[in-house]
Amino acid sequence: MVNTPGFRLSARFADVKSSPVRDIQAVIGRDDIITFAGGIPDADLFEADDFAAAFDYVLTHQAKRALQYASTPGEPELREQVALRLARQLPTHPDQIQVTSGSQEGLFLVGMALLDAGDVVLVEQPTYLAAVQAFSLAGARLVSVPSDEHGVLPDALAAAIAEHDPKFVYLVPNFQNPTGRTMPLERRRQVAELLVQTGTPLLEDDPYGELRFDGEPVPPLASLPGMAGQTVIQNSASKTMAPGVRIGWLRAEGDILRALEIGKQAVGLQTAVTDQLAVARYLATCDLDAHIVKVAAAYRERRDAMVDGLRAILPSQASVNRPEGGMFLWAELGEGVDTAAVLPRALECGVAYVPGWPFYAADPDHSTMRLSYVTNTPAVIATGIERLARAFGW
Amino acid sequence: MVNTPGFRLSARFADVKSSPVRDIQAVIGRDDIITFAGGIPDADLFEADDFAAAFDYVLTHQAKRALQYASTPGEPELREQVALRLARQLPTHPDQIQVTSGSQEGLFLVGMALLDAGDVVLVEQPTYLAAVQAFSLAGARLVSVPSDEHGVLPDALAAAIAEHDPKFVYLVPNFQNPTGRTMPLERRRQVAELLVQTGTPLLEDDPYGELRFDGEPVPPLASLPGMAGQTVIQNSASKTMAPGVRIGWLRAEGDILRALEIGKQAVGLQTAVTDQLAVARYLATCDLDAHIVKVAAAYRERRDAMVDGLRAILPSQASVNRPEGGMFLWAELGEGVDTAAVLPRALECGVAYVPGWPFYAADPDHSTMRLSYVTNTPAVIATGIERLARAFGW
Repeated sequence: MVNTPGFRLSARFADVKSSPVRDIQAVIGRDDIITFAGGIPDADLFEADDFAAAFDYVLTHQAKRALQYASTPGEPELREQVALRLARQLPTHPDQIQVTSGSQEGLFLVGMALLDAGDVVLVEQPTYLAAVQAFSLAGARLVSVPSDEHGVLPDALAAAIAEHDPKFVYLVPNFQNPTGRTMPLERRRQVAELLVQTGTPLLEDDPYGELRFDGEPVPPLASLPGMAGQTVIQNSASKTMAPGVRIGWLRAEGDILRALEIGKQAVGLQTAVTDQLAVARYLATCDLDAHIVKVAAAYRERRDAMVDGLRAILPSQASVNRPEGGMFLWAELGEGVDTAAVLPRALECGVAYVPGWPFYAADPDHSTMRLSYVTNTPAVIATGIERLARAFGW
Repeated sequence: MVNTPGFRLSARFADVKSSPVRDIQAVIGRDDIITFAGGIPDADLFEADDFAAAFDYVLTHQAKRALQYASTPGEPELREQVALRLARQLPTHPDQIQVTSGSQEGLFLVGMALLDAGDVVLVEQPTYLAAVQAFSLAGARLVSVPSDEHGVLPDALAAAIAEHDPKFVYLVPNFQNPTGRTMPLERRRQVAELLVQTGTPLLEDDPYGELRFDGEPVPPLASLPGMAGQTVIQNSASKTMAPGVRIGWLRAEGDILRALEIGKQAVGLQTAVTDQLAVARYLATCDLDAHIVKVAAAYRERRDAMVDGLRAILPSQASVNRPEGGMFLWAELGEGVDTAAVLPRALECGVAYVPGWPFYAADPDHSTMRLSYVTNTPAVIATGIERLARAFGW
């Protein structure tokens, strides 16, 4: 028997697409395009000196450890620091932490640990794109649960659980990507009660929760009665500290921790020890809370510049929300507008955004778009909005 | 319908075990145990000052880039440096490089790109354990090809290709893990010809090739006629520079590069930018060749200490080989010895190794063991061998 020459890709790649966000970003490497597309923090706000000092400490005082193999769950110092931080909202022991190479790896590991081909994951409508990609590669069938501006609708969630027997529910309760919406406490209570009642596990993805500009923090679902043991909660250094170090972490209890560890062995043995120790050092010696206050102040101003700028010129059938934190706002441009179709013209006009349709697991609303307000200053945002207006003919 | 409470792990975890090597290493954190178990480089040989300088440069001069998101294939400087190095043996363009978070991620990405449930991967007998784990998680069925001290037997390989229609063949041609054996040029030619003739892709894993102490380098299979386009070749910074930075890279051509990139997006967006830039800086400004000469000299001495020490006391039915490079040697202790059964006593005696059986995809030889000679100095190796002798009753 003679094979056809060359590689035969696996079937899982037949349905899995490249990330539209990443593809748009590749196009907009051009300096003349103002990008509202990616959730890219403003590098001018990074604590570069603090990170330089942290890496310098690690490479000077812990070099042999930092350059060597290490254990799969993660470095003790880092697990302790992130457990301390999580414990502000949820009692957490360092042993309950699995360090990951960024949140994306965390999503992938949870998917791999729980999903067989054809298994259902329930997601919000719309939901975070890269999670869809990670779960799809594990063979999942994603089912959207009808949602409003406060997140999933409890009745619809109950019906979906009954119908689909999902392996888990995936939610981003704080400043959701892509919509910027936050689930209020009362909704969280209803959802948690339902999940506990039906024994349905939750993957609570919380990269943005600490980036709150207005209003009061809402407790994580994992902290509500009965939820800690059936929730994997995920945080990341990417949004509050720096994405380039690729440090995220999962908090879980019981058997799933062991499956996550074995998955992590298979995917990459351990996260870069250099970065783990540097982030641990940063957390132990620098004031992340003060940094977040500074960043939140800048992002609040940018959010307002974008929301106010857009509301001043949007046609009457269009709307944008004003999230209380995070990185994104969500625009609904109304009947008949197709944001994907307009994108090429927007790029010609020198501005980029992400069309809303890829964030829907089904039944996309083609009039929607995601706009990030964190990358640019208010002055640049104003220019970007002028370009959007030109592209859309507002 | 009410679910059973809690997490239901995916079926893929039913068959996938934790790495015995990692598990043994977790046990031997104790300072009083001399370990020949892991392929752990001697941290005293790391170029700690050079890496401190490289990280310092990156965090001082490229901090905004290093701390920011970046492209999925990898940083241009790093892709260029590793392409230059690969080009010593195989013409390589930087666009043909996908950076990975260590070799393990590379194995996982190739498995994910090519394997559907039930697909066959042909492997050497014995083969590298963590590759088995990575391919198994993608659903592969691993089939061992009979091998001798020069690697897979071409006739047996031909028969296995005809019988199993494998998605790819996985080989470690230089100083293989676990056996230390190297495939001679003539065998490589026979294998390459067969793979080209049958259009069978190859994953050529080469983490150890540059660590040669004796003899002449042998060209990679990827460089033999017709092979470049149907081979993914993989290298790593872990064995020649430092494992803690988690930097590896794949070299491939054509469509599979795109699948590897999409897989990498899903598994973790990109490898830590800090480490990518630091390794690129190290390669651009330091003399890796000189470092390898230094390391090879130390490892040669250690290999000889271990081989000579063992041969002086091994019973007549037992044997060890003397690899020309790499990190491991392979001992066959002969009929009736079960190295796994003796391991607890060895640990009591204060010495660790890895039993050979887990390295076999089928039909394990229980009398075998893998010994790493790189972690310890000759004096410590001598003490370790005394302890082995006590444990085995030599």
